[in-house]
Amino acid sequence: MMWSTAAISRLGIRVPVIQAPLGGGPSTVELAAAVCNAGGLGTIAGGYLTAATLREQIRALRKLTDRPFAVNLFVPEPAEPDPAEPDPAVLDGARQLLSRYREEVGLPPDRRSGPWAEDFDEQFGVVVDERIPVFSFTFGLLPGDGVDRLHGVGTVVMGTATNVREATALASSGVDLLCAQGAEAGGHHGTWIGSARDSVIGTMALVPLVCDAVAVPVVAAGGIMDGRGVAAALCLGAGAAQMGTAFMLCPEAGTRVPHRRAMTSADETSVALTSTVTGKLARGVRNRLMTELEGATVPPYPVMNRLTSDLRKASADRTIRN
Amino acid sequence: MMWSTAAISRLGIRVPVIQAPLGGGPSTVELAAAVCNAGGLGTIAGGYLTAATLREQIRALRKLTDRPFAVNLFVPEPAEPDPAEPDPAVLDGARQLLSRYREEVGLPPDRRSGPWAEDFDEQFGVVVDERIPVFSFTFGLLPGDGVDRLHGVGTVVMGTATNVREATALASSGVDLLCAQGAEAGGHHGTWIGSARDSVIGTMALVPLVCDAVAVPVVAAGGIMDGRGVAAALCLGAGAAQMGTAFMLCPEAGTRVPHRRAMTSADETSVALTSTVTGKLARGVRNRLMTELEGATVPPYPVMNRLTSDLRKASADRTIRN
Repeated sequence: MMWSTAAISRLGIRVPVIQAPLGGGPSTVELAAAVCNAGGLGTIAGGYLTAATLREQIRALRKLTDRPFAVNLFVPEPAEPDPAEPDPAVLDGARQLLSRYREEVGLPPDRRSGPWAEDFDEQFGVVVDERIPVFSFTFGLLPGDGVDRLHGVGTVVMGTATNVREATALASSGVDLLCAQGAEAGGHHGTWIGSARDSVIGTMALVPLVCDAVAVPVVAAGGIMDGRGVAAALCLGAGAAQMGTAFMLCPEAGTRVPHRRAMTSADETSVALTSTVTGKLARGVRNRLMTELEGATVPPYPVMNRLTSDLRKASADRTIRN
Repeated sequence: MMWSTAAISRLGIRVPVIQAPLGGGPSTVELAAAVCNAGGLGTIAGGYLTAATLREQIRALRKLTDRPFAVNLFVPEPAEPDPAEPDPAVLDGARQLLSRYREEVGLPPDRRSGPWAEDFDEQFGVVVDERIPVFSFTFGLLPGDGVDRLHGVGTVVMGTATNVREATALASSGVDLLCAQGAEAGGHHGTWIGSARDSVIGTMALVPLVCDAVAVPVVAAGGIMDGRGVAAALCLGAGAAQMGTAFMLCPEAGTRVPHRRAMTSADETSVALTSTVTGKLARGVRNRLMTELEGATVPPYPVMNRLTSDLRKASADRTIRN
C-alpha cells in the first residue's frame, strides 16, 4: 500500500504529523517550534489571541524555526441570532448559574458585555500581513475573499470539517487541504453545517468518507495518540494526522499543572462531550462544571466561552494553590 | 511495519476479516458461508435463535463450507434488578407507550410475559455439543466454566469489550482473543462494566488502548467499511477487523428491503445512538421509533428488546407492502 504524499508535500513537512491548535494555554511558541524542528507542522493557536499578540507569536516562532508552521483561527459564527447580541434573559440566566462558582474561586460578579471574541478581521489581517506558510481554520468557511488573499501571499490554506457536507463546501471554497475532525477529538467539535450532535462521527468512519468526497488532500484528526494512529490515519486515506491531546503533556506545552494531573489520571471512560461549558460542543475530561451545567440553557459560543473562561482559569489557579 | 498474525493464525483464517453477528435478520447461513469461503470468518448470530434453530444453522453452514466459522451468543445480563422480572409499572408504561405503534401496524395489544430472551444454557449446550471452530460472545463474561468447556472441545473463544476494564477482565477469564468494539459500531453497544454512555469510545482511540492492556490478540470493530479500515485496524495493533454494516447489503444477507433502502439513502449524519428501542445502547439509522422514544423510561434489555421486536418486524413488513 502506498500513502498519499500530497498533503506532506503541500505542507512542506517531512513527518506527516500536525500539532493541533491548543487554545487557552497548552499551545506555546516553544511547542510549535519543537514540532516544526522535528519535521512536523507546529501550529500557533491564534483564536483567543489579540491581533498584536498573534503577531508577536508568529515573529517569535520564526526566531525558533526556519521550518513551515501554521496559524489557526476560528472563523466568526454565522449563527442566528447574531451572537454579538445574546438574548439578555439567557445571558442573565447563565451569569446567575455561574455566580456561585465565581464566588467559590474568589471572582467578582460578572458584568462583562461584548465583544465576546477577538476581532477576526484584525487577526486575519495579521495572518495575511505576515505571509505565513500555512493557515488553518475551524468553525466555518473563510469569509469573503479570504482564501484568495492567503493564496496571494503564498499561504497554504486548510479548513476543518466534521461531516461530508462541510468537507465538500470547504473543497469548493478553494482550500488546499482539509482536516477531517472525528468525534474522538478533544476540545471543540466545531460543526457548522447541520447539528453538532448529528456529526459526532468517529475518525475511523469519517476519514474515508471525506477522502471519497473531495479531491484535496485530507488530514485526519481525533483519537490519534501515537505512531499506530498516524499509520492508521494514512491507511484510511489521509495524508497526515493532526494530534492535539498527544502533545499536551510535552514539556514545551503550556498545559497547566491541574490539567496535566487530570490527563494523567484520566482513563478512556473519563472523557465526555459537553455543549454548555463554552456554548459549543466540546470533548474533555469530565469535571464538576461539565457535570453540573449539563442540560442548562446557556448562550451560544463565543458568549458562554467568554463567561466561563476566567472561571476556568481561576479554578485551575486555585487547584494549584490548594 | 509488520502486522500481528496471531489473530488470524488462532482463528485459522486467511483474510483478517470477521463478519460480525447481525442478529434479527441480516445474518444468514449463506452470508456466513460466503465469508468463510472467501477466506474470512463468517459468524452465525445465535443470540436470538432457539437452541434447535441454532443447531440447524450450524449444521447447514457446515454443508456450505469446510472453513472455520464462528457462532455468537449474548451472555445473560448480570444487571440488577433481575431482568427476568421487570418492574411491573415500567413494563406497563412501555406497553402503553408502544400501543399506538402496534395499532398503526395492525398488531394486537401486547400481553406477552417472560421469558424475555432465549435460554442461554440451552444455546450454549448446542455450541459445546457441536464442537464449533470459534465461539464469540458479547455483553459480559462467559458464566461458570464456559471457557474451559469450549477449550475442552477445541473451540477458540473470543469475548467483546467496549472499554479497557472489560478487556482486562476478559483476558483474565481465559479467552483466546477479544474484540474491541468502538463507538462507531452499528447495533448493540454492549458495555457491561461501567456506564454504556461513558464507553462510547471511538475505534481509533479504543483499539490501541486495549492492545496495550492485554496480551491476547485483539480484533477491531466499529466504523470499518472497506480495505482502508481493515488496514487501519491492523496499524492500530489489531490482528483482524470485525465488520457488520459492511456486509448488510450483500446479496447473501437477509437484510430486509426497507432496511436496505434506509442504509442506501442514509449518510454519516443519519445514524444515532438510542437506549430506549431495545433497552440497551445501540447505534442505528435514525427512525421514528428511535426519535419518539428518546428519553422515555423503558425496561432494560432484553425485556424492551422483546417488546419492540414484533413491532419492528411488522413495521418493515408494512413498509414493503406500501
